[in-house]
Amino acid sequence: MDDAAAILVRPKGSVELIARLARTDMAGVDALIAARMTSSAPTIPALAEHLISAGGKRLRPLIAIAAARLCGGEGDAPLKLAAAVEFIHTATLLHDDVVDGSKLRRGKVAAHLIWGGASSVLVGDFLFARAFELMVETGSLRVLDILSKASGVIAEGEVLQLTRAHDVNLDTATYLEIIAAKTAELFAAAAEAGAVAAGASEAHAVALRAYGLNLGLAFQLADDVLDYGGASETLGKNAGDDFREGKVTLPLLLAIGRSGQRETAFWERAVGRLEQTEADFRRAREIIVGTGARDAALDAAADYAETAKAALAAVPDGPWREALEALADFAVSRTA
Amino acid sequence: MDDAAAILVRPKGSVELIARLARTDMAGVDALIAARMTSSAPTIPALAEHLISAGGKRLRPLIAIAAARLCGGEGDAPLKLAAAVEFIHTATLLHDDVVDGSKLRRGKVAAHLIWGGASSVLVGDFLFARAFELMVETGSLRVLDILSKASGVIAEGEVLQLTRAHDVNLDTATYLEIIAAKTAELFAAAAEAGAVAAGASEAHAVALRAYGLNLGLAFQLADDVLDYGGASETLGKNAGDDFREGKVTLPLLLAIGRSGQRETAFWERAVGRLEQTEADFRRAREIIVGTGARDAALDAAADYAETAKAALAAVPDGPWREALEALADFAVSRTA
Repeated sequence: MDDAAAILVRPKGSVELIARLARTDMAGVDALIAARMTSSAPTIPALAEHLISAGGKRLRPLIAIAAARLCGGEGDAPLKLAAAVEFIHTATLLHDDVVDGSKLRRGKVAAHLIWGGASSVLVGDFLFARAFELMVETGSLRVLDILSKASGVIAEGEVLQLTRAHDVNLDTATYLEIIAAKTAELFAAAAEAGAVAAGASEAHAVALRAYGLNLGLAFQLADDVLDYGGASETLGKNAGDDFREGKVTLPLLLAIGRSGQRETAFWERAVGRLEQTEADFRRAREIIVGTGARDAALDAAADYAETAKAALAAVPDGPWREALEALADFAVSRTA
Repeated sequence: MDDAAAILVRPKGSVELIARLARTDMAGVDALIAARMTSSAPTIPALAEHLISAGGKRLRPLIAIAAARLCGGEGDAPLKLAAAVEFIHTATLLHDDVVDGSKLRRGKVAAHLIWGGASSVLVGDFLFARAFELMVETGSLRVLDILSKASGVIAEGEVLQLTRAHDVNLDTATYLEIIAAKTAELFAAAAEAGAVAAGASEAHAVALRAYGLNLGLAFQLADDVLDYGGASETLGKNAGDDFREGKVTLPLLLAIGRSGQRETAFWERAVGRLEQTEADFRRAREIIVGTGARDAALDAAADYAETAKAALAAVPDGPWREALEALADFAVSRTA
């Protein structure tokens, strides 16, 4: 399938639909976030604000809100859950950037380069603690159970990724296991906990968890593909970051498998030992496109998005469900 | 008051009494700790085991157990709480050592020097998540509320300390605020949550919280004093660590205040700018002893230990209460 065909067959999708439906709720979530990052230690709100105000699409809290409202949840428990989910996400970003030594986050200088790694670690811990305080206020032990388990899984995924960084022999099954843990688990937990906070049936909670998990995988794989440029020839502004950090992702792993012994020395040098020249990213990209690895990774993302949508068949129809379906399409269509 | 008098008037105290009473419970806590640090990422149990097997006195879980049993708590909820408290403590130690760049912990090479700072950050996150999972299993939202709030306070205390490191103008009130947050809060939360997990009355929970907070302050101040040598002339094996890291603690702050302008340049250089010669620790110690700053810090520790014991008047008499009283005396007597 060539690029033009890929654009044609993939539904456009939208993040606007869910954002519009959740507008009032998300204003409440933002107010909670602002109120709960205050502290007598001034570094904490300053550092947290730097990252949180940089935006991002707030996908995880949006999913928690949608799952809760879809299942008939009322009151402010869904807002508290959503703010908690965003705090957990922010805490993991702060720690990740220290761990990876990343220079940029959401288009801004990474917090650890301004306030130091020590502050990023401690403010992450603070936000994590505040997340659990917010969840206690939902009054639901099951919500706490889901998110504490998810937090453990995320940390395990990060550790696993750390130990396999630059490993050009990583198998794709292990790679999918890593991104299921470090990325998709929080999407899954946000959706499931949203349902649970709304008092949903077990079947609805299970369906929403499946939606979140598959959506998270689709998002991560689409991100991986975007790092080597979208379906168009224009490269995104941060294209090449993964490659330059020696991060092994699905398009790269597939290309390594498909390019055979011919390119072994290249991958070992540029990714394994991280000895790169300016021209290497262009060469990697050509192999990834030329071997069809990029299209294959994109197809995998599209499959997960379809599975996510299929899982929604079990939950009540209506505007919230449509918004979640559109979000799944958006996950993949933004690569076009 | 000279050293000999200090030894005579301070009750001996004991950690053996509480350890003996809690022996069976602590075997259960150790089993839980071992079972819950397992993971598919092998770095996690290896790193956690390195720190946890190095021992330490397990004071915080002992206090949680004692508070729960004292208040009539039965079953294994107190064990889960105690294991959770030890996981939170271990997580903060891992993050602290990264933040401070410490080389040793519990007499062993610090974990971040073996597995790297990134692993220490992530394994800390993992243990923190596991702590919350264990607390969910106690079935008590109030336990989760107490420990999530405490975790936030601890992180705030660490951030506050970080921003005031090497500050020779730190006032003692702010210093006490910092150690109340970063050290004493977890003792307080362990004691309070132990009572709450046992279904104790509000009055008993409040009394045990006050015990824990004051005990934690006594322990930290005694530790601070021990860094400049005990009441005897023999120096402990890690004496001088705080000074060499430029950590401002109560004996140092009191000595700075008492030694006046005469020593300003010395403190500014050795602590403020951390430009030290071999002879500086000896000189600092002489000033700290000579100005009576060490005895004053020790008196402050003894006062907190007395306040801790006094708080216990409100809880039922018996062997557990006696063991907690002996622990408070031990906090200070180990400096003799």
